[in-house]
Amino acid sequence: MTGIGFSLVAEDGAARRGLLETAHGAVETPCFMPVGTAATVKGMTPDQVAATGAQMVLANTYHLMLRPGNARVARLGGLHRFMGWPGPILTDSGGFQVMSLDELATVTDHGVVFRSHIDGSRHELTPERAVEVQHNLDSNIAMVLDECTRYPVSRDRAADAMRRSMLWARRCKAAFRSRDGYGLFGIVQGGVEPDLRAESAAELQAIGFDGYAVGGLAVGEGADQMFRVLDVTVPLLPADRPRYLMGVGKPSDLVNAVARGIDMFDCVLPTRSGRTGQAFTRGGAVNIRNARYAEDPRPLDDSLDCPASCDYSRAYLHHLVRSGEILGAVLLTWHNLAYYQRLMSDMRTAIAEGRFASFAAAFAEAQAAGDIEPV
Amino acid sequence: MTGIGFSLVAEDGAARRGLLETAHGAVETPCFMPVGTAATVKGMTPDQVAATGAQMVLANTYHLMLRPGNARVARLGGLHRFMGWPGPILTDSGGFQVMSLDELATVTDHGVVFRSHIDGSRHELTPERAVEVQHNLDSNIAMVLDECTRYPVSRDRAADAMRRSMLWARRCKAAFRSRDGYGLFGIVQGGVEPDLRAESAAELQAIGFDGYAVGGLAVGEGADQMFRVLDVTVPLLPADRPRYLMGVGKPSDLVNAVARGIDMFDCVLPTRSGRTGQAFTRGGAVNIRNARYAEDPRPLDDSLDCPASCDYSRAYLHHLVRSGEILGAVLLTWHNLAYYQRLMSDMRTAIAEGRFASFAAAFAEAQAAGDIEPV
Repeated sequence: MTGIGFSLVAEDGAARRGLLETAHGAVETPCFMPVGTAATVKGMTPDQVAATGAQMVLANTYHLMLRPGNARVARLGGLHRFMGWPGPILTDSGGFQVMSLDELATVTDHGVVFRSHIDGSRHELTPERAVEVQHNLDSNIAMVLDECTRYPVSRDRAADAMRRSMLWARRCKAAFRSRDGYGLFGIVQGGVEPDLRAESAAELQAIGFDGYAVGGLAVGEGADQMFRVLDVTVPLLPADRPRYLMGVGKPSDLVNAVARGIDMFDCVLPTRSGRTGQAFTRGGAVNIRNARYAEDPRPLDDSLDCPASCDYSRAYLHHLVRSGEILGAVLLTWHNLAYYQRLMSDMRTAIAEGRFASFAAAFAEAQAAGDIEPV
Repeated sequence: MTGIGFSLVAEDGAARRGLLETAHGAVETPCFMPVGTAATVKGMTPDQVAATGAQMVLANTYHLMLRPGNARVARLGGLHRFMGWPGPILTDSGGFQVMSLDELATVTDHGVVFRSHIDGSRHELTPERAVEVQHNLDSNIAMVLDECTRYPVSRDRAADAMRRSMLWARRCKAAFRSRDGYGLFGIVQGGVEPDLRAESAAELQAIGFDGYAVGGLAVGEGADQMFRVLDVTVPLLPADRPRYLMGVGKPSDLVNAVARGIDMFDCVLPTRSGRTGQAFTRGGAVNIRNARYAEDPRPLDDSLDCPASCDYSRAYLHHLVRSGEILGAVLLTWHNLAYYQRLMSDMRTAIAEGRFASFAAAFAEAQAAGDIEPV
């Protein structure tokens, strides 16, 4: 194959089950990619990440280009070897974090000039540079550089950012070096404006990418607006290529987006909230710091095939988190990743068995009935 | 058996190889106990700790009596179940940390009144209470409450502290509830004064304990004085009972103390220094933050049977530690514990094979020849 392979193995309504193939192995979709910002899924060994069922991880170009540097990663054999993750890796372009971490970043059609959050040094990210950095990292799926606006944003500003993103997408495609098992994804922008989203989706397909992401969501617009954008955007994407909803989301968001035909997700929620004491369960999210868990001998969820979920009482996790112990962050992150991966696995099975709608309804009911605080 | 079992299986000079037997399993000696202050060896799962070869861990009575509370631990089935460590556990008495964490603690013959470092609340620790708390924790080896002085200290002050400690040791013994597989250790005090150490050793044996610790060392007196104290103290301890050097130490300290007949050790060094980027190797200690490791593709030590030692480059560990990543602390702690446990295992083998002196000489030579900064 040139690029990355993608085949649908089952469809159920708009929901799809598929297989993504890369130079570093295959990924069953719908999939959730744990976020490994600085070449580590925070607190987890790669073995632990793999044991949760994760098949692909995401790493952040912005962080890695600054530290340890993409050239250094390349000299050390690429990101897979560097971080001990032999499976597929997707990298973002760096653009989103450049613009969110440096409010004074200067964006022109040429690219973005920004200051490092580590030492204040000046750097430039252009479409060509974003592709080169991701190539040096040996990323299996690279993302185009785009300009992502926060919500709310004027229609004119959203249109400008989308058109600049399309200009950059074209330059990224031109700069990308095709190889078997490696791909480049375009990113649909356009804020909450259906016509801008449609223009962006058409423009990207005219350029041609290995997959298509929906960007610029989960930036403050709320779930209702997010799903309205998906409702008008996803049907405009080619059916035979993977669809990736960037930076999303809560468990219920994953179910509702899979229902609309999304294949890929990433989000810091299971890892970040694990580090602050939040655990995901069938009945909703648990804040393990809550005094109600101080003597609760039950594990988080012994139906999960994960030591962090089965082998420790809520009372012990409560103690660890209250005491600021590293192991508390480790175990809750581990559990949350296992919970997310089982949710994806359950959705894949439901799609294959043609019962996704009833699965989604049962999921929503369990979350609503939870005796614990909702997310 | 009543109390804990101890049998010598080999002797080589003053060095001894033995087997300690408790209600939660056996421990080969000389042994090193990782420190699990707040019912967790910081950053490690119990499985990881066990995989390094550790057979017994230490937990801190002071921390656990304040949080989560010893009564709560008892209601949750004891410390073994609470922290997921099925093997033997030794607890200190709490006295050392009470007196080091609250400089205003009031010490009388009755006990110690102190304030919690967590919330400033007032608590009292008496010999009877220290034994009761350790009983509630279900500790296999409890330690008597003692008064440990810092170096330097006047002879009069050292004598007073030692005599108070002997008074408390007698009360601890009276309060201790004997059970099969559980024991109480006395602690020799007396500063750097040989006659006070001798008086303390004799007094403890008159009371009678399951094992004998040497306390009040590694408190600022330096290695030379520490070993001089061991030289005069260890020969006064009964040969048929385990000997425990509290709070020690560096790898070279362990070798030199085993040479003098010590059987048990605990120290925060491998765990605490792992969290700050220091790794122990045959050639000495490595500060992985050093720029020389930024592109070093070698693992820390692939002769160790430990993923943290074999599966990650020094360059990656350097990156993790420089980036403040949890995984850096986890992997260096894991490696350091594996290094310490192999050192203990190597010493046990050398004793069994009657070549401890040559092992110790080779160890010192390797440390001296290390191309890396010494500890």
